[in-house]
This record gives sequence, C-alpha cells and structure tokens, in this order.
Amino acid sequence: MAMLIASRRLSCIRTAPSSSCSFFSTSSFREERDTFGPILVPHDKLWGAQTQRSLQNFEIGGERERMPEPIVRAFGILKKCAAKVNMEYGLDPSIGKAVMQAAQEVAEGKLNDHFPLVVWQTGSGTQSNMNANEVIANRAAEILGHKRGEKHVHPNDHVNRSQSSNDTFPTVMHIAAAMEINKRLVPNLKQLHTSLHSKSVEFKDIIKIGRTHTQDATPLTLGQEFSGYVTQVKYGIDRVLCTLPRMYQLAQGGTAVGTGLNTKKGFDIKIAAAVAEETNLPFVTAENKFEALAAHDAFVETSGALNTVAASLMKIGNDIRFLGSGPRCGLGELILPENEPGSSIMPGKVNPTQCEALTMVCAQVMGNHVAVTVGGSNGHFELNVFKPMIANALLHSVRLLGDASASFEKNCVRGIQANRERIAKLLHESLMLVTCLNPKIGYDNAAAVAKKAHKEGTSLKEAALNLNVLTDDEFDKLVVPEKMIGPTD
Amino acid sequence: MAMLIASRRLSCIRTAPSSSCSFFSTSSFREERDTFGPILVPHDKLWGAQTQRSLQNFEIGGERERMPEPIVRAFGILKKCAAKVNMEYGLDPSIGKAVMQAAQEVAEGKLNDHFPLVVWQTGSGTQSNMNANEVIANRAAEILGHKRGEKHVHPNDHVNRSQSSNDTFPTVMHIAAAMEINKRLVPNLKQLHTSLHSKSVEFKDIIKIGRTHTQDATPLTLGQEFSGYVTQVKYGIDRVLCTLPRMYQLAQGGTAVGTGLNTKKGFDIKIAAAVAEETNLPFVTAENKFEALAAHDAFVETSGALNTVAASLMKIGNDIRFLGSGPRCGLGELILPENEPGSSIMPGKVNPTQCEALTMVCAQVMGNHVAVTVGGSNGHFELNVFKPMIANALLHSVRLLGDASASFEKNCVRGIQANRERIAKLLHESLMLVTCLNPKIGYDNAAAVAKKAHKEGTSLKEAALNLNVLTDDEFDKLVVPEKMIGPTD
Amino acid sequence: MAMLIASRRLSCIRTAPSSSCSFFSTSSFREERDTFGPILVPHDKLWGAQTQRSLQNFEIGGERERMPEPIVRAFGILKKCAAKVNMEYGLDPSIGKAVMQAAQEVAEGKLNDHFPLVVWQTGSGTQSNMNANEVIANRAAEILGHKRGEKHVHPNDHVNRSQSSNDTFPTVMHIAAAMEINKRLVPNLKQLHTSLHSKSVEFKDIIKIGRTHTQDATPLTLGQEFSGYVTQVKYGIDRVLCTLPRMYQLAQGGTAVGTGLNTKKGFDIKIAAAVAEETNLPFVTAENKFEALAAHDAFVETSGALNTVAASLMKIGNDIRFLGSGPRCGLGELILPENEPGSSIMPGKVNPTQCEALTMVCAQVMGNHVAVTVGGSNGHFELNVFKPMIANALLHSVRLLGDASASFEKNCVRGIQANRERIAKLLHESLMLVTCLNPKIGYDNAAAVAKKAHKEGTSLKEAALNLNVLTDDEFDKLVVPEKMIGPTD
Amino acid sequence: MAMLIASRRLSCIRTAPSSSCSFFSTSSFREERDTFGPILVPHDKLWGAQTQRSLQNFEIGGERERMPEPIVRAFGILKKCAAKVNMEYGLDPSIGKAVMQAAQEVAEGKLNDHFPLVVWQTGSGTQSNMNANEVIANRAAEILGHKRGEKHVHPNDHVNRSQSSNDTFPTVMHIAAAMEINKRLVPNLKQLHTSLHSKSVEFKDIIKIGRTHTQDATPLTLGQEFSGYVTQVKYGIDRVLCTLPRMYQLAQGGTAVGTGLNTKKGFDIKIAAAVAEETNLPFVTAENKFEALAAHDAFVETSGALNTVAASLMKIGNDIRFLGSGPRCGLGELILPENEPGSSIMPGKVNPTQCEALTMVCAQVMGNHVAVTVGGSNGHFELNVFKPMIANALLHSVRLLGDASASFEKNCVRGIQANRERIAKLLHESLMLVTCLNPKIGYDNAAAVAKKAHKEGTSLKEAALNLNVLTDDEFDKLVVPEKMIGPTD
Repeated sequence: MAMLIASRRLSCIRTAPSSSCSFFSTSSFREERDTFGPILVPHDKLWGAQTQRSLQNFEIGGERERMPEPIVRAFGILKKCAAKVNMEYGLDPSIGKAVMQAAQEVAEGKLNDHFPLVVWQTGSGTQSNMNANEVIANRAAEILGHKRGEKHVHPNDHVNRSQSSNDTFPTVMHIAAAMEINKRLVPNLKQLHTSLHSKSVEFKDIIKIGRTHTQDATPLTLGQEFSGYVTQVKYGIDRVLCTLPRMYQLAQGGTAVGTGLNTKKGFDIKIAAAVAEETNLPFVTAENKFEALAAHDAFVETSGALNTVAASLMKIGNDIRFLGSGPRCGLGELILPENEPGSSIMPGKVNPTQCEALTMVCAQVMGNHVAVTVGGSNGHFELNVFKPMIANALLHSVRLLGDASASFEKNCVRGIQANRERIAKLLHESLMLVTCLNPKIGYDNAAAVAKKAHKEGTSLKEAALNLNVLTDDEFDKLVVPEKMIGPTD
Repeated sequence: MAMLIASRRLSCIRTAPSSSCSFFSTSSFREERDTFGPILVPHDKLWGAQTQRSLQNFEIGGERERMPEPIVRAFGILKKCAAKVNMEYGLDPSIGKAVMQAAQEVAEGKLNDHFPLVVWQTGSGTQSNMNANEVIANRAAEILGHKRGEKHVHPNDHVNRSQSSNDTFPTVMHIAAAMEINKRLVPNLKQLHTSLHSKSVEFKDIIKIGRTHTQDATPLTLGQEFSGYVTQVKYGIDRVLCTLPRMYQLAQGGTAVGTGLNTKKGFDIKIAAAVAEETNLPFVTAENKFEALAAHDAFVETSGALNTVAASLMKIGNDIRFLGSGPRCGLGELILPENEPGSSIMPGKVNPTQCEALTMVCAQVMGNHVAVTVGGSNGHFELNVFKPMIANALLHSVRLLGDASASFEKNCVRGIQANRERIAKLLHESLMLVTCLNPKIGYDNAAAVAKKAHKEGTSLKEAALNLNVLTDDEFDKLVVPEKMIGPTD
Repeated sequence: MAMLIASRRLSCIRTAPSSSCSFFSTSSFREERDTFGPILVPHDKLWGAQTQRSLQNFEIGGERERMPEPIVRAFGILKKCAAKVNMEYGLDPSIGKAVMQAAQEVAEGKLNDHFPLVVWQTGSGTQSNMNANEVIANRAAEILGHKRGEKHVHPNDHVNRSQSSNDTFPTVMHIAAAMEINKRLVPNLKQLHTSLHSKSVEFKDIIKIGRTHTQDATPLTLGQEFSGYVTQVKYGIDRVLCTLPRMYQLAQGGTAVGTGLNTKKGFDIKIAAAVAEETNLPFVTAENKFEALAAHDAFVETSGALNTVAASLMKIGNDIRFLGSGPRCGLGELILPENEPGSSIMPGKVNPTQCEALTMVCAQVMGNHVAVTVGGSNGHFELNVFKPMIANALLHSVRLLGDASASFEKNCVRGIQANRERIAKLLHESLMLVTCLNPKIGYDNAAAVAKKAHKEGTSLKEAALNLNVLTDDEFDKLVVPEKMIGPTD
Repeated sequence: MAMLIASRRLSCIRTAPSSSCSFFSTSSFREERDTFGPILVPHDKLWGAQTQRSLQNFEIGGERERMPEPIVRAFGILKKCAAKVNMEYGLDPSIGKAVMQAAQEVAEGKLNDHFPLVVWQTGSGTQSNMNANEVIANRAAEILGHKRGEKHVHPNDHVNRSQSSNDTFPTVMHIAAAMEINKRLVPNLKQLHTSLHSKSVEFKDIIKIGRTHTQDATPLTLGQEFSGYVTQVKYGIDRVLCTLPRMYQLAQGGTAVGTGLNTKKGFDIKIAAAVAEETNLPFVTAENKFEALAAHDAFVETSGALNTVAASLMKIGNDIRFLGSGPRCGLGELILPENEPGSSIMPGKVNPTQCEALTMVCAQVMGNHVAVTVGGSNGHFELNVFKPMIANALLHSVRLLGDASASFEKNCVRGIQANRERIAKLLHESLMLVTCLNPKIGYDNAAAVAKKAHKEGTSLKEAALNLNVLTDDEFDKLVVPEKMIGPTD
C-alpha cells in the first residue's frame, strides 16, 4: 500500500508535474531536508532530499538511463574506504563502522534500488554523490538503531567527510572503469584470444587461397589467416592494459578544485591505498589533482584503446561472416555453428548472428568514443562537467565489448569448422598458382597458360596440357601450394 | 535433459545470479518448439522458442540493453495492421481479430515484460520479430480460449503472414522513429523555441556588450543575442522535419530480399495505408524495397539532423552557462534559476546543471550519430545487418534530445532573468564605445582616449575629459550604445 | 632591423626551404604597414602587412593547408559585389570600378598565388579577409596607375567598406560551398545516378541469387539489385539539395556582431541580390544575422547530408567489389573494367581500385563530418571561431565526393558487365529454390530434398529425383526463379 | 594513336586547365610501357607507365591531395634499405648501388616533383609503390649512364625485388608515422610542456579564484591551474610514446599476403634492421605479417593517442582564451601576447588567435581519427585497402598537432602574463572566502554574511562589519586565501 501510494506520488511528479497530487497520503512518505528546505521522499527508499530533487529536475531518458551499476558499486567501495581513513583522522568509530557496513552493502549491489538517478544530471555527478551519501547515511543510522531522515549519521559531515563531489565522482569513475576492464573485458578478450589461437593451430595445415583487394591472391594456410586475428586480439589486450596506469590514478583528496582544501595532508595517499587494498588493483593517488578534476583524458585515452579493439573485432567479424558465406553461393570456406533456426526451409542457412551482434557492438563503441572525446574536450577551468556521460559511455563500451567477445567466443569461434573440401576446391581452381611455373616454362608461357585458363574457364592444368608446355606429371610436381606459404631457405 | 539443464543454467544466470538455483520446479516452465526442437520457456511469459534461444545466445549488456520500447510498440502497430490487411487476403477472421487485439495490447505497452531480448542480437532483428510473433500468437490464442504453446494461432503462418523479418524490422524502425520524432522531439523543441522567443522579446531593450573571439566587441541587445538561439532551434526543427519524407517510407511488402516474394500485389500499399491510419502519420510504401532493406540511409540522414540540433543546443547551453557565470568572478549577465543547492555556504552559487545535462546529451547524440553512420555504411548485398543498433542509437538520441530540451526549457530557460545592473556596468565600462567618437574628434584622438583608458584602467569618459578632447555633455551626447545596434538609415 | 631579419628568416623558411638564403637583396621586398607598424613583403606579391604577419605567426601545415581555392574565388565574387553596392552608397566610382575589376581577377583564380595563408589561422578568417582586401586594393591601385603599398586604394576603407571579417568570412563560406555543391558535386552524383540507372535497366532480366546476412537467399534480378543503388544515389542528391535553402542565406550585412553597425539599411539585401546575380544561385540575406555569425549549423547540416551520401557510396562500393570478387574464388557475378595492371602474371585479376578510392573518400568524409560537428558546436557568444576549419573540411568533402563519384562512374560503373554464366550457375546451384516445391510436394518432402542436396553436395534436382518425389519434367516446371522475383497477382 | 590523344587530353586537364593545349610538341613526351602496353609520359618526369595510368584514372582532389611527403621520403628510405639487403641476396652490386643512390635522393625530398599521385588511388598504395619503383629505376639508370624508359634498371625486378606493394606500403606508413612523431610531434609537445611548466612555476604564488561549473569556487594558485595543463601535455606525450612499440613493427617481408612468398628467410629481419639503422629508430620486423597487412590497428591506436592529445589541447586552448577574455567585460586574468592587429580602434583587444588555430586543429584531428577508425575497421581478408587514406589522415593529424603546438607555444604560451591586479580583485570580491569564517562565527552567521554581501553587492568584509559579527582586524586575520590552497597539516 505504501508502495502504491509512493508510486502514485512519483507518478504525479513524473508524469503530471503540474497537476494536483492531493490524494496521496503523507504516511507513505517521510520528510527530508536540505538547504533548499523540506521535501517528501518515499518512505521505503533510503535516499534523501537532494536525490529527490534531482529526480524531479532531470526527467531525461527514463529508467534505462540510470547511473550504471559499476558506478554505484564504486561509490560503495569509496565511501567504505573514506570512512576507514576518516576514522584515522578522528571520525567517531561507531559512526565510521556503521558507514563502512552500509557502504559495503552498496558495494555489493544490495542497495541498487536506492539509486534512481539518471546519467543526465549535473555534470559533476554531484547528485549521485549525494545519493550515495544519503543512502549510506540513512542505512548506517538504521544499523545504529536510528530512523531514516533523522541524520544521526549525516550525509555530508560523516559520509562525505573530507570529500567533495568534484573528487569523489572522478574517483568512482576510475574505480568502476578499472574494475570492469579487469574483471569483465580483459578476461573475455583473453578467452577469445585463446580460442582463436586454438583455431589457428587446428587449421595450421589447411592451405587456402589468399585474397587481397577481395580478389584471388597467392595461398596461405587457414591457420596463418587466423593468426592475424590472434595477433589483433593480443595487441588489443596490450592496448587496453597500456592505458591502465593513468586509470589507476585517483582524484580523491583534491576536493573542490584540486587543492585538497578541507583535507589533511596524507589523506589522498591513504585513501588510494585503501581503495587499492579493497579492490586488489594498484590504485594510487593522482600525481596532479587539478588535471584529475578538470580533464578526463584518461577516459578519452582508454576509450581510444576500446575503439581500436572495436576496429579489430569489426575486421575479424566481417572476415568470418564472409568466409562462412554460402552455403552454395558464397565463399563457404568456414562452417559456422548453427545456434538458432536460420530458415525453416533451407538447411545449411546459418546466419552469422554472432558476427552481427559483435559488429553492431563495435559500431556503438566507435560512436561512444566520439561522445567521450567531445565530452572530454569540453571541460572548463577547474572542472570538467561531462563526467556522468563520459563514465556512462565508457562503461557501456567496456560492457558491450566484454560481453560480445564472450558471446562470440562461446557461440561462434569455438565451434568454427573448416570446410576442407571447399577450401581445396577453390585453391586448386585458382589461377594464381601459375606463379610456380615461371622458373620452368618462363614467364611468357606461364602467362599464356593462365590467360587461356581464364578465358576458357578451365583449370590451369588443362590449359597447360592443352598448350603442350608440360606434362601431367611435370605439372603436378611443380604446382605445389605447400611451397608457397613461406619464404624460401 | 541437456536442454533442461541448459535452461536451468540460463535461469540461474539471468534471474538470480548470485543465489543457488536448485529449488525451481519444472512446473514453472512450459515446452515450446521451433525447427531446432523443444526448449523450456518460463510459464508466465508469452514468448516462445525462438525468443528463448536468443536469450541464451546473446547475453550481451543485460536488461538496460533491451530493445527500446518504441520498437516493441511499433511491432504491435505493424502486426495489427498486417492482420487487418491479411484478412482482406484470406486470413481467417476469427484468428485475424484475435491477432489484432493481442497486437493492440503490444502497441499500448501492456506486454512490455514479454519482450526480453537485447539490441545485440541478429543484425536483421529477426529474433525481435519472432518475439513479437510468438507473444502475439500466444496472447491471441489465449483470447480465443486456447493455451500458450499450442500454436492454435501460429507465430509464422498467422502473425507473420506475408512478412519477413527483413521487411518488418525496417518497418518498425521507421514507425518508431517517426512517432518518437513527432510525439516527443518536435513538440519539445517547439516549446523550447517558444520559450527562447519569449525571452528574446522580453530582453529586446537590454543593450549589452557583444563578444567575438570571447573578447569585448560592439554592443547588441540581449534580445538580439537570444534571437540567434531562437533561429537555431527553429531551423533545427525544420532540419528534422526535412528528413521525415524518407522516414515515412515503409519497407513492408519487400519480404526477404525486396522482391515481395510471398506477398500479393498491392499488399505493400495497403499495409502502409493501414499504418498511416493507425498512427495518423503520412506513411507510404517505399518507392524501392531493395534500398529499404539493404540500406538505412534514412536513419543516417535523420541522425545527421539530430547531430545538427545537438551542435546548436551545445552552443546555446555553453553560452547560457558562460553568460550566467559568477556570481562575482564570471560574466554574470544572466541569472539562472536555482533548482537545487549549489553549495551550503555560498549563496548565489547557482550551478548551471540544466546546461550540463543538455550538453552531455548533445555529446552523446554526436557519438550515436557516428555509430549510426558506421552501421549504415556497412550493409552488404540485400540486407543491412546493423538494424537493431541503428534503431537503438537513433531512438536513444531522439529520446535524450527530446527529454533534455523539455527539461532545459522548463527548469532553466523559462526562469532566466537578465542581470540588468551587471549588463549595464559592463557595457559602459567597455572601451569599444569609443567608436562613436570618431566622427567628432577624429580617429587619432579617439584612439588616444581608448589607449589612455585601457592603460590607466579608467572609463572612456574620464580619459576623454582628462585629455580635454570634449566636454562632459558632449561625451554623453555622443556615446550612445542605443545607436550602435543596427544599420543606419 | 629586427623586423628585417625576422622577415628574412621567414622568407628562407617559406619560399626556399632547401636553398641557401643568403643572396636575396632587400630590393626584392617592399614595405607595407598596418597598425602594428611596417613590415617587409615580397615585392612580387600583392598582399600587404596583415597577410605577411599571418604568414609568420601561423606556420602550421605548410602549403597543402592553404585556404581552399573556392574560398579565395568566393572572396573575389563578394568583394566585386560589395564594390558594386557600395557605389550605390557613395563609394567613388573610379575606385569602385577598379576594385570590381581586381576582384573579378580573384574570382577567376588569376591571383591565386597571392593567397598564401593557411586554414589554421585566426578562427574568424580575418586574415584571409584582409588578404583579399590587400590583394584587391594593391591590384586595383595598379589598375589605376598607382604603386603597390601606397594605399591609393585602401584595403579597409575601400575594399572592406561596410564589411567586417565576421560577416564576410561566413558569406564566402556559403558562396563557396553552394557553388561547389552545385557545380561539382550534384552534377557528378547525377551522372553516377544516370549510369547506375542504365545498368539497372541493362540488367533487368538477369535473375540471380539474393544474399541476406551474406548468406544465400531468395532470388532477385541484377537490375533490381542495382535499382537499390540507383535509389540511394537519387535520395542522396535530394538530401544534399534539401540543405541548400539554409546554405543560400548570406551573413553579409551583419558586420561585427550581427547588428549591421556601420552599414546602411538595405545593404544586406542588396549585396545578397548582387551575389545571386553574379553566381546565378538563389542567395538571399540571412533571416537572422546573429545566428549567421555565431553558428555554422548550415555547415553541420550539409556535412550531415554528405555523410549520408558517403554511407550510401560506401555500401555501393563494397557491394560492387564483393560481387566482382574472383576471378575464381570469389562471388564473380560482376566483371569490372580493368584500368591498370592488377598483376603481371595473373590475367583476370582486376583490382577494384575505383571502389577502393571511393570508399577511402567516404571514410574521410565521415571523419570530416565529425570535425565540422565539433567545430560547429564550439562557437561562443557572437562569433563561432572555427570558421576556416569548418569551411575547409566541408569543401574537402564536397570536392572528394564529387571527384570520386565522377571517377567511379567513368572508370568503373560505366564498364561493369554481368558475368551471366556465373550468375546462372550460382542461381541454379542454390538450395533456396526449393521453396517453389512446397505447394506440390509439401514442406516435409521439400525440406528432405534440400537437406539431402546440402548433405551430399548435389543439386536440388538430383536430390529430388533420387528421393522419387517428382519427375524431371515436374521439377523443371516447378522450379522457376522467374516466378520468385515479385509479388503474385 | 588513341593513347596519344588520351595522353594529350590528360596533359591539358592536368597541367594547363584553362589554356589551349594545341601547341605542345610530342617531342616533350617519351613512351613507357607496362603489361597494359605503351603510354606517353612527360619527358622531364622520371615516373613510368603505371604512375601515368594512375594519374589518368584517379582525378580526385587535385594537387593538394598528393601522397604526403613523409610517405614519399619513407619510400626512399625503404628502397635504399631493400637494395642494400638485396645485394646480400644476390642483386648485382652496380645496380644495387645506383638504386641506393637514387633512393637516397628520394629520401632527401629531392625528387618530390616526380611523385604526382594522389591519396585517392588504389587502396593498397600499389600505384605509389610503383611510382617509387619507376622513379628510382629511371634515376638509377641515369646514374649508370642509361636513358629513362629503357629499363636498364627495372622497377619491378630490381627496385621492387623481394617486395610487394602489400608489404612496402604498410612499411612506409609505419616509417613515415614514426619519423614524423619522433621528429616533429614529440619535440614540439615537449617544448610546449616546458613552456607551460615555466609558466606554472612563474605563477606559483598568484592566488586566484577557482571556477567549477564555470561558477566561482574556492581559490587555487594560477601556478596550480597551469600545472593541470602541464600534466595533460606530459601524459599526452606518454600516450603517444606508448603506441610506438607497435608502430615500430614493419610489415616488410610479408610480400603479397603475409607469407613472405618470394623472399628468402631472414630478409624481413635484415630489412627492418637496415631501416632502423638508416632512421636511428628502433624498427623491428612485425611479429605477425598477416596482421601487418590485413589490419592497421597500430594506426587506429596511435590516432587514438593523438585524439587524446587533441582533447587535452582543446581544453587548454579554451581555458586560456576564456581566462584572457576582456579586456573589460571578460574574465581578464591573463594577458595574452598581441601578435597582430585585433582592431584598429580598440587598444587591448587581443584576439586569442593562437588558441583559435590550435582548437581548430584539435577538431580536425578528432575528425581524422574517425576517418582512420572507419578505414581501419573495414579491411577484408589478407589486405586492408584503406591504406593511403589512413596514412594521410594520421600524418595530417601529426603534422597539424606538431606545428600548432609549436606555434601556440611560441606565439602564445611563452608570452602569457598574469593580470595580477585583476586576479586579486576578483579573488577578494569573491563570496567563496566566507568559508574561512565558519570556525570563528559559526555556519549561520557566515551564511548571513555571504547572503547579505550577495544581495547588496558589497564585499564580505563590509557585510561582516555591518552585521557586527567581527572586527576589521579579525576579518583580515581570518580571511586568508593563502591558507585555502592545500590540505592542512
């Protein structure tokens, strides 16, 4: 019932802001206050006045656009660490411990429902920082036996102590990005790398026609072809890892403008150490806090690495779908796993759906990269105010690339088979093998053979025999693709 | 059994990731079938086998990444119209009517919970088309007194009759985009235009310093300055509207490759007419169905218009936040509405949060535009397979721009006040007004006055009197900003 | 003296990078002056002091980065028209006529060597405006029998009369873009459209396999496939033309900040009319001069249309190179004209080089579009100061798209031939045709036929006869691709 | 004859577009041949048949679009090294040495006029490779006393020996990019870093108002503010350097498809070593040649680093122009060097033209990055065919960023002065300093002081004295910005 009424009132606020909302009963709400005065908050929610105001002032995008969960969890980590360090600097331990416990719940995703704010809010993320402060304060108060809204634990004085939105938000951006990259993206790329590498080994003896300019070219092995993809993914992982040193730098301790006003000396180093311990990742305090608040170059840089990975995966996805095209009228060199009905009537029609999902993801990552770049370049003075957008776009890209790599690996790469018959057929039909004849019959005769075969649509061998330039045996001895797949001694 | 376990695993992953999954009873599932065989589906869901398979094969992005609601609703509209037209071509009316009723429920958003698939699936959107077919078929069967999964109403034969995913998905893309543009974006831009225009009129007599290269320049009125914004938004609306003729073209009737195989002549025209009637928008059948399936240039084009609107709003948002900067150390010419606490200690600190949300949206729209462009340029042969990504990115941009325009208008523009005192002070301190003296005292004397004032930090008048080049009275008669704000007769 | 040395150094760097510079005599320079004082200018050049200063201050990019020629020529047009209108408002006719004559020479490209400035200068284009003023003034003075540098005709007072860089530069941007679009891009796109249309007609009876998801699908005619390209180009032309109404609006008359200070009423309308007459294009004065100086939304919009054309041409270029891939191991349905040696040994290896040039151009156009968007969104207050970059990037895109369309049409499309034999072979090998058998032998039997053929690698007919589901005659009567390329009556 | 006329037409078009072409004598051409047959080439040019054909087939963009000089020079380096290594493998030393000498001339830029081809050609850069082969072969022949066109030194057999366009072009891309980055970009960024650092030190004691959300905030020193820029540039250099390990990998030795067909074992390692020695940069042979031909991820990655640098410089450029805005009506905290006349009448109007050039460059770099990404993601099979576009866009970005950084450093940063008076005035007017009073008079009184000052437009001190909350002396003792610029002990 309470929920229903709360929901109704919310509905008033959200869908009919100017209509009378006189029917909801105040019993389902409690009053919270900030410097703007009192405001009603749904009783079953832990958030406070500033969160509620933001909800009303930023009706942009709806629920899909909520601040991403990794940011919310990172707030839990940060606020826990802040309480821990603040206790060293004099925060009442009973309050400090309750804050740590409440923050831990946030870090574990248990209080996600209490973080309703969307990305499209103030550009410093202040309102999400206050959302975290309010939720943790109310929850900590409850842990200590007090009521919500009474401010026994104070969102600003206790939870946000020695902090400013201007340093906490970039800090959680970095924590969230580094964790998602380490826990989701890199392992999935590594698994993809392993799987492509296995295929490269599995296919190492399958000689096939090469294609340059999409045209027939000299041969290589299918394993060699896949080794290119293996290398792309391997370097992709390196590229992402290369950017992490700057991602591990935390702004915390810079407070409002980077000076560290209202903190004690050493606070910045201690909190970075605490976060490092909590996350098991090598976070350090940012060398220059002014840069850390005013710019998000680390995000632009990392997004650039993701953009490169996207370019690589787009290439790989495209190749695999073209090599698997067919079954009769395409290239047909690969047999892709069949995961769902392609068509009810046409057996063998395997739509390369995993390639499609992957390449769509790559396109979105390229787009998000431009968004991050535009946001990153538009900071002014002491604060970049495109923070939530930048964080959201990068985390979106990390999530999509990580998940899509896993899906592609599991549902496609792992099951790819070589269509050996088709590969051999194309290879031996190719006119490119004529190259081998040069030393024996000379360039002019070789060219004549190839031209005749092309014109008449015959095999090279038929043309060669027909032109009487060599015998059946000689042809078979000379035209050996196996000798064309590497440099000579 | 393997299937059962697969399904169980899925359920664990999807619905209760961290809990043990051993307690669910098979009674909560029913069996659905497609050409791949049987599969278990949650009993309380209307979807069928193909939807379930997609859920398992594309674990990418999580719930936030579900196919956008406007697409789901557009499927409702399309399937309703298809049933209506199919009845003209022989579909059993009792089934047809049930399909129309079920589709209407989808169109109204009542069955949103039965559309669990994410954007990152097959690039033709086939699985979302099948999701719609399956849900509508099961719901229609229930309406007719039959059970889910029995296929009394068949997803393919009845709901998808005369259709292919390859024409339905582009059709719902166009329906969804056109509706969102007409119902959300354009009205909100118009409201923003009206509000900016009111401000332009309100401020028409306030003369202020102009700024070029961010440097002091000749004066204009604040109303004139706002008239630039008014014009930008007005043209922005024109730009979006200009793209609609191509958005109103529907692919429906092209079926698998654009030829219209398996449809009857006239089907395409009738269904476009039915959609037009249902939506009250001027949809027509696409002039060329091959283009309509193989390319999404209409989306690239419309996204380009949104990108232009984003560039305009970025400029407006930036200007307003800079003109409102201060309260003491910025330009301070505008007073922006205070919607939430800026700082607990500093009265007058109004953070331009609405400008921030708006400009963040603009950056994301620019990014989405690149994603749409990359996807749009990568179609091959008879089908572009970046459809769900393209649809999602464009609808995301439309929603964000529409909502942010409304929020910016309501919570910022409407309440902007001119700081007349500050504006007047800056204007009269400006050295630029010296231009007026040229005719009277000559260029050299005027320059001397300006140089002296600049060097000594005095007013022009003080410098002029000091140099004895004219009297107090003469200065006041000559230096009249009011005469500098337009061409002369 | 310091000045002389500075100038000498410059001259070495700029005009003779690899030669020794010790021999030039000061007699090869003349002195020009601006408000900063005197400066040496090469005697054989018509430019003056401000141009020379810009040369020294902006050593960015080198000669390749000079202001594009269409901008220089547009300055000629504008300055000619300005002189004409200014004579109506009192400009001395002898000077006016000389200015018109000199400006005409600039408009014809005869004085291109006197426009050395690069794009990367002041963001208002002031220095290029002054370059035009200085060159025209010196040239007009010579026409009247005076010497360079004497300012008988004054760059500011005469040539730039009633103008400001802030309105002239956007004006020449619009003139140049509209002219290039009308004279280069649109005609070339129309020619491409015509040529593709001819191919569509030529190929109208060639039935071929369709491909969706890059996989075999139901058939269509090659003419139908090309009709999709025809429609893309046709709409592309429409898209570009749609943006011109806003491109035809000229800023001229807005002067420094948009107010028109220092112009007479009516000047703006008259000068737009003069430009319209001179260029034979429907230029009008901008409805709102504040928007016209402070934003370049018209360029962002037009660039968006070019971006859409690029996406279309990327698709067409990709399709054609894939359809022409081979000669043996690709799809091989199209035979592309052979314009240059592909390989000295492999006859038939035709690299699709025109497709490659075209698609590279498309990628650059997409990139330039982002540059234009970023520049367009970053204007502040009364003046956008990314003008030269925006102009350059758009003109670059227009030029590349126009030239590449012409080259692609002439050297590729026009000569495309269908490989009828290959097309027929693929079509008849396709398993997709089994669809036709459903009505006669039922779905199950049809599926059995297709499955058998796929598994055993035989033709559908062989499989059908083998399974005894129909006779040779029956098969030939039923399996008729010609009936699969449109809706039925 | 047809050929002759074709050639004549070309010559008209290319070398004298508006003049009549009827008078040229055929004696100014010589005949060159390739496998397509004979073709006329201008006698004074060293290029051969394939270059000439490309000239005729790719009339795209005109002279501005020629292959960038660093690519041409890198071809010189590569061909020199190839001849050197080929001599170890049996190339006739007299020919080898002549090739080396001719190649050295190319490397030094002496033969630039003989490289007329544009970027928009075949996507493998084959034609530019042949251009290099032809020029070097003809020049080497001349060195040996033979005539042009006689093929005493053969472009393919001698100059291109053991090479393919498919490995030479990516090799010169990497050489050119690595050299430009090391010789132009990084030194200029380092100089900018040094100069910004000097300013940061110079300004270390100037306390000023901070600005967040563009609004007044707590103070910092101007040196601290600049230290943010210093850090951005420092990290930018790191970011670029981080990408070099993959840029130093050379494709040479992969030949046509990456297998190294037609090379001897060890050739790849030797040639990379030779290039390393020649350039003094740590080039190595690419670990995987398939990746090195088929993808250009290294370019996408490096372009991403440039994009990050562009985002940084955009921020710095914007800050500096806003901090320098005025002279009367802007922020006015910085005094920027005056390099050219801003306005003839308004002393003190310094347009921040260097910031404008720099930020325009940044926008173009962001755009080029998208072009590189699109090209990089669109490779197919064994060869990416967007090579010349990718190379051109990246080199464009490197050049522009390098030159603009130098120009900005020299003509702007170096001369920036702090306007100490203005900075002090703004700081002391700020209401933000009230924060200091909290400990002494309590939050409520402090807020009352600030509110009163804001409302009445007075200083904090006036308000405080007026409210009798403290004395003149007390105020001065408490309100000390110097104590607000760092953490406390």
